[in-house]
Amino acid sequence: MLETMNEVKVLRDPIHGYIHVRLNVVWECINSAPMQRLKRIRQLGGAFQVYHTAEHSRFSHSLGVYEITRRMVEEIQDLRQGLSEEEKVTVMLAGLLHDLGHGPFSHAFESVTMTHHEQMTRRIILEPSEVHDALVRCDPSLPEKVASVIDHTHPNPVLSQMISGQLDADRMDYLLRDAYFTGTKYGEFDLERILRTLRVRQGKLVVKESGMHSVEDYIMARYHMYWQVYFHPVSRSFEAMLTSLFCRLKQMARQDHPDLKRLPFLIPFLSDGPVSVQDHFLMDEPACNYGFNCLRMSEDPIASDLAGRLLDRRLFQDEALSEKGQRERLRCLLMEQGWDPEYYLLSDEVRQRPYQPYQGMENSMAWVLMETGEIRELSQASEIVEALVQGQSRNDQRLYYPRQLQRY
Amino acid sequence: MLETMNEVKVLRDPIHGYIHVRLNVVWECINSAPMQRLKRIRQLGGAFQVYHTAEHSRFSHSLGVYEITRRMVEEIQDLRQGLSEEEKVTVMLAGLLHDLGHGPFSHAFESVTMTHHEQMTRRIILEPSEVHDALVRCDPSLPEKVASVIDHTHPNPVLSQMISGQLDADRMDYLLRDAYFTGTKYGEFDLERILRTLRVRQGKLVVKESGMHSVEDYIMARYHMYWQVYFHPVSRSFEAMLTSLFCRLKQMARQDHPDLKRLPFLIPFLSDGPVSVQDHFLMDEPACNYGFNCLRMSEDPIASDLAGRLLDRRLFQDEALSEKGQRERLRCLLMEQGWDPEYYLLSDEVRQRPYQPYQGMENSMAWVLMETGEIRELSQASEIVEALVQGQSRNDQRLYYPRQLQRY
Amino acid sequence: MLETMNEVKVLRDPIHGYIHVRLNVVWECINSAPMQRLKRIRQLGGAFQVYHTAEHSRFSHSLGVYEITRRMVEEIQDLRQGLSEEEKVTVMLAGLLHDLGHGPFSHAFESVTMTHHEQMTRRIILEPSEVHDALVRCDPSLPEKVASVIDHTHPNPVLSQMISGQLDADRMDYLLRDAYFTGTKYGEFDLERILRTLRVRQGKLVVKESGMHSVEDYIMARYHMYWQVYFHPVSRSFEAMLTSLFCRLKQMARQDHPDLKRLPFLIPFLSDGPVSVQDHFLMDEPACNYGFNCLRMSEDPIASDLAGRLLDRRLFQDEALSEKGQRERLRCLLMEQGWDPEYYLLSDEVRQRPYQPYQGMENSMAWVLMETGEIRELSQASEIVEALVQGQSRNDQRLYYPRQLQRY
Amino acid sequence: MLETMNEVKVLRDPIHGYIHVRLNVVWECINSAPMQRLKRIRQLGGAFQVYHTAEHSRFSHSLGVYEITRRMVEEIQDLRQGLSEEEKVTVMLAGLLHDLGHGPFSHAFESVTMTHHEQMTRRIILEPSEVHDALVRCDPSLPEKVASVIDHTHPNPVLSQMISGQLDADRMDYLLRDAYFTGTKYGEFDLERILRTLRVRQGKLVVKESGMHSVEDYIMARYHMYWQVYFHPVSRSFEAMLTSLFCRLKQMARQDHPDLKRLPFLIPFLSDGPVSVQDHFLMDEPACNYGFNCLRMSEDPIASDLAGRLLDRRLFQDEALSEKGQRERLRCLLMEQGWDPEYYLLSDEVRQRPYQPYQGMENSMAWVLMETGEIRELSQASEIVEALVQGQSRNDQRLYYPRQLQRY
Repeated sequence: MLETMNEVKVLRDPIHGYIHVRLNVVWECINSAPMQRLKRIRQLGGAFQVYHTAEHSRFSHSLGVYEITRRMVEEIQDLRQGLSEEEKVTVMLAGLLHDLGHGPFSHAFESVTMTHHEQMTRRIILEPSEVHDALVRCDPSLPEKVASVIDHTHPNPVLSQMISGQLDADRMDYLLRDAYFTGTKYGEFDLERILRTLRVRQGKLVVKESGMHSVEDYIMARYHMYWQVYFHPVSRSFEAMLTSLFCRLKQMARQDHPDLKRLPFLIPFLSDGPVSVQDHFLMDEPACNYGFNCLRMSEDPIASDLAGRLLDRRLFQDEALSEKGQRERLRCLLMEQGWDPEYYLLSDEVRQRPYQPYQGMENSMAWVLMETGEIRELSQASEIVEALVQGQSRNDQRLYYPRQLQRY
Repeated sequence: MLETMNEVKVLRDPIHGYIHVRLNVVWECINSAPMQRLKRIRQLGGAFQVYHTAEHSRFSHSLGVYEITRRMVEEIQDLRQGLSEEEKVTVMLAGLLHDLGHGPFSHAFESVTMTHHEQMTRRIILEPSEVHDALVRCDPSLPEKVASVIDHTHPNPVLSQMISGQLDADRMDYLLRDAYFTGTKYGEFDLERILRTLRVRQGKLVVKESGMHSVEDYIMARYHMYWQVYFHPVSRSFEAMLTSLFCRLKQMARQDHPDLKRLPFLIPFLSDGPVSVQDHFLMDEPACNYGFNCLRMSEDPIASDLAGRLLDRRLFQDEALSEKGQRERLRCLLMEQGWDPEYYLLSDEVRQRPYQPYQGMENSMAWVLMETGEIRELSQASEIVEALVQGQSRNDQRLYYPRQLQRY
Repeated sequence: MLETMNEVKVLRDPIHGYIHVRLNVVWECINSAPMQRLKRIRQLGGAFQVYHTAEHSRFSHSLGVYEITRRMVEEIQDLRQGLSEEEKVTVMLAGLLHDLGHGPFSHAFESVTMTHHEQMTRRIILEPSEVHDALVRCDPSLPEKVASVIDHTHPNPVLSQMISGQLDADRMDYLLRDAYFTGTKYGEFDLERILRTLRVRQGKLVVKESGMHSVEDYIMARYHMYWQVYFHPVSRSFEAMLTSLFCRLKQMARQDHPDLKRLPFLIPFLSDGPVSVQDHFLMDEPACNYGFNCLRMSEDPIASDLAGRLLDRRLFQDEALSEKGQRERLRCLLMEQGWDPEYYLLSDEVRQRPYQPYQGMENSMAWVLMETGEIRELSQASEIVEALVQGQSRNDQRLYYPRQLQRY
Repeated sequence: MLETMNEVKVLRDPIHGYIHVRLNVVWECINSAPMQRLKRIRQLGGAFQVYHTAEHSRFSHSLGVYEITRRMVEEIQDLRQGLSEEEKVTVMLAGLLHDLGHGPFSHAFESVTMTHHEQMTRRIILEPSEVHDALVRCDPSLPEKVASVIDHTHPNPVLSQMISGQLDADRMDYLLRDAYFTGTKYGEFDLERILRTLRVRQGKLVVKESGMHSVEDYIMARYHMYWQVYFHPVSRSFEAMLTSLFCRLKQMARQDHPDLKRLPFLIPFLSDGPVSVQDHFLMDEPACNYGFNCLRMSEDPIASDLAGRLLDRRLFQDEALSEKGQRERLRCLLMEQGWDPEYYLLSDEVRQRPYQPYQGMENSMAWVLMETGEIRELSQASEIVEALVQGQSRNDQRLYYPRQLQRY
């Protein structure tokens, strides 16, 4: 039963002006403990080590995704008239809740702990939790429906496209939000124009030809945000060091190291066993940061060193991987100078092109409704995007090691 | 003699915060009649018929170009240390004065009257005028020097690049300014970042590799502004109609039509003879608009009709030229219905790609200073720009005719 | 009959994002010649001589007032449910059309020509005109209704308050718009918050107590805009000189001066007889500016001098009137040096306080709906506003005369 | 020895565009552990519970204060020429370091733990710490000098005014920054204008009369930020609950409660003994938040309940204190329903006027340099401020208690 509230609640938001909440179930989900926990997890992991104001949380992003989804179902005529009331609330809730399963410093954490935020999101929605209970109070079938939008199994594919496709509320919010909070301008694009030109045709979200330039701009914004923010080498250095520290902690856990006693919340994540929804609930950035402060005093020199470096921003230096033997030479130097390369020689590789439609992967494609009525895949409609698809992709491989390493 | 003023004068400007004027000669040029005349000429010709707030003048743009040039010579170390004081004042003045020779509704007006704003700018600087006098009072050789920067003959090529190259103050100001006054976001890019990463190497303005993404963004901003603003079909319809009206007026002038007596300012521009600097000075948008209001009452039905349409925004409709015989069919229809196709069937073609370096044309190229010290042409440095250069260019041919035309 | 259009038309606007037009009659009024004429009249008269980008027209302001009115009737629940469809269209049209009767450089022009823009607005709506015809096509009683909202005689007083009260769409648009186009920040306030907290109680627009601080901010914004922009001495110097020139022209008209023959549009305004709607239609800023350029060559030395000064921005200097005899001393000096004080010694006085409720003048009052349900006049509800009402008002008297005057 | 770096370092910042760092000692202080710790303390304590994006840290604010101070010494001529190089670096460092001593959730924490952030800031600068060491490496007398600016004992009083007076870098940064990160507009004012009009006269920072309106605007911005953000009842409810929880923890500490063993970092703050710089260093928001998560499982029902409420945002409801006996009635109700009023009936009082000059307290006064050369205290120069000073101050007393309380 879709109870509306007496008065629309509004939450001030710098990106959207206000977040508007009319439905009781949405309000209850926002006020649930698992959603409030997202205030304790930063949206951008280590990017605040490059852009010092990138301190915004996944909570505010989640509200933003909800708000764009809400505007879509209320302002895009094809959705307002084409979706049932139940589909509308389902997709708005999917937008709001889609990030529930994230842990702290997302990628680094997941890579070591073998958790997957998508699965955890699903579990929080489907297993007993304040969120689950709020959904059930509204409609017992709601948890399953919301989860199915998030994992792309809902019978109406448009719902999934709205929160995770090429022109989805998730990306549209995070580009604008991350641009605002980093203070860069690369992520800006014309959200109003895209919303005004979205239509539904043949079970797909499509953008009218007259809005195509806004989409081109959005594709470029995304590309620039990747290289200037998400893939910034300093941010990657921070995340590589986090990964290294977590590996060390797992190693210590295997040896039942006494210092871990003081970090009970971390323990479930350091074995390869399953973690419970409750374990996950208690694992947030404050827990990690507190833990790192404790580890400064650890007997384990590597854990202690890495933890202090992470907190005090004494990050590893980065170097492009450009020649054969480079890694091996660094490894030797590190060993000579007493650093264990397993924890002190790190590397990663990132790769991105502005847009890449894959045959058979609907979600990788954006669609344009031409003035003639024809529907074309974006790179078939835009000279700019066509050029980008045919051009080279950009990739970057880097090595990371302590700044103190002596080079000869 | 470079007299500075007692206090830096500042003019509030929405794009740059403030315009800063320290030199007497700059202040005198700003306050001269030919510069003040630019307040009576809109920067964007007919674009205000699409974007109703695009009403800003060439005067404010000129101040903006001056301000960016001033920041370049004061903030870019290679210019601050590498240019002489005389070169600095010369290039700032060239930035300020480069648009002096513009007439009203620039392109339409020039195409009919055979005037060229570049030549006229040169004449206003070199022939007696308030601007010329102000320059001479500062230094008798200044007019010639300023003019040589504008027409690319100054011995130091960097000066010309600063106000008319691929990364010049002119374009950087107009993209930001036109974006602000139209209310679009396409023209936005990161001016601060580009200024911070500009260097001079081998007699060229180059941008450091770390600023290359800002240049990519700027190239895309330019491309989008072209298609969304400068080449907007409604704006082109307005300009095509202006051209048509001026052609009619020339025709009337050849026949010595009595209605032109009331428009003395227009007459010098309707024969193909030379116009004087004074004729040009009096020819501004108010003169045209006043003239059009007079022409509403003209005995000549075509001039009267076109003038009223332009003022009241009853613009011709536009249609993409897409098939053979299309123009001919329209011509027949117009004639059948009593419209003279010479004035009522108009067409144009626009073509643009985001960036196109031409062999041997230095001004068409942007240069990147790679981290290795190497200097590369932009499309050799950026995967994105390379793709755009190799992709198709976009062009658009349109026909314009009265909305009242009956189609069968 | 309220015909809606097939598709909502949107006009891009930097203040409101988009102007939304759904009703045919609104679209027709926007496209009528009298509305399009407002593109040829600047919103801020002479302020562009101080803030060089203050070049926006009354046309864009009129669209903005319409848009705020539209949002009020659609977004404020008490209006959405409390007004009839007919009242809604009436007030939106009143917002759109309320400035139709303005002449160029409004205050200076009106003070000399004895026209009143309010009367002229009324006549354009009620006498035959493209606007009148569009209104009648929709509903024959519409012209009378719209006019009655503008002159505060409509039976529902809320409609008049919406476009001309203490919290009206007119002022809310012009403060935001003038702030944007001057590049100052003083005019900014939180429009969204005010709109969200407006209610109708006892036949009055009131603001909820929770929005009162936004109203305080708006009152201060208004106060600052007055002193920093509208009453700026340079702008007042320009307007005083305009007034002086118009006085001179009236004098020349009384003497049937031959130079006025070339300025036929001006003549109806230089006698004290009535002007027609058609005379008014042709009188715009281009006509004045063209006329001033003609007058540069006039035989009348005062008209010629003043016209050139206005166009070239050689403005009179201003001086605060601070002591007895100051005016007399200047008058003597001017006469000694050959300047006719009637035209060369000008003065004005401006006076403003942030907010001043007058007993019995409903329009001078803003109302607050307290949490208790009580309705209080603003200065009874806000400590800040109470203080301002009891404080001194600020006034400023100035004298203006040529900068060339020699002082001893 | 003021070593400058090879290249100016810039940090992107949404408020100032970039933070510019030229001096080595500044760079070293920024990268010290005590400064980096400020990334783990939010600037606005509990305001993120009202404005969900108010998640910015004291670190970014500190950089902003430094940047405004840097601009002051470089751009205000009286400071650029009037201060010695040593004074300049001293005041910039004082701006950067002035908040070092803050604990988490500042006011709540201080009120219970009896620490004072000013004293702690002083100790971090003067006692051995990475910050102290960096200062000494530059100049052994620097710690003492920087500390003296912060505690207003430096021989040049202008330095203290710059970072803590009526027009100081601290407040100017936090108003703009808090406005940006909350998404409100109340805190905006014209920083550029104020900086341009600041002068030094008679050993005082004064603002020129022509900048006085910007100061009026700034005073109002401050007033509105206090009431809309800093004193928001929800934020105060959060802080009152924090205070209540810390009181409970002190009580538990006195009883040596075993649950506190798991929170070793908190213990030094729960007795009334002195805390060390190292204790303070480890006390940050993650430690508190981690601690609260532990306390959820505490045997102490009050600590457990309050900790969970704080984390999950189940805040007490607030009620204006308006009648005699109100508190007593609530106390009875609470007791009847089993809530201990010592921890469940909270109250506070806030009081603020826009500006209040106190006789003999130089720091409470702002000064205006009149056009006549006279220097006046702000309320003697501005009608607006005079009115505000003479008007009533606004105060607000509230009670807080669980939303679950049954009222009859």
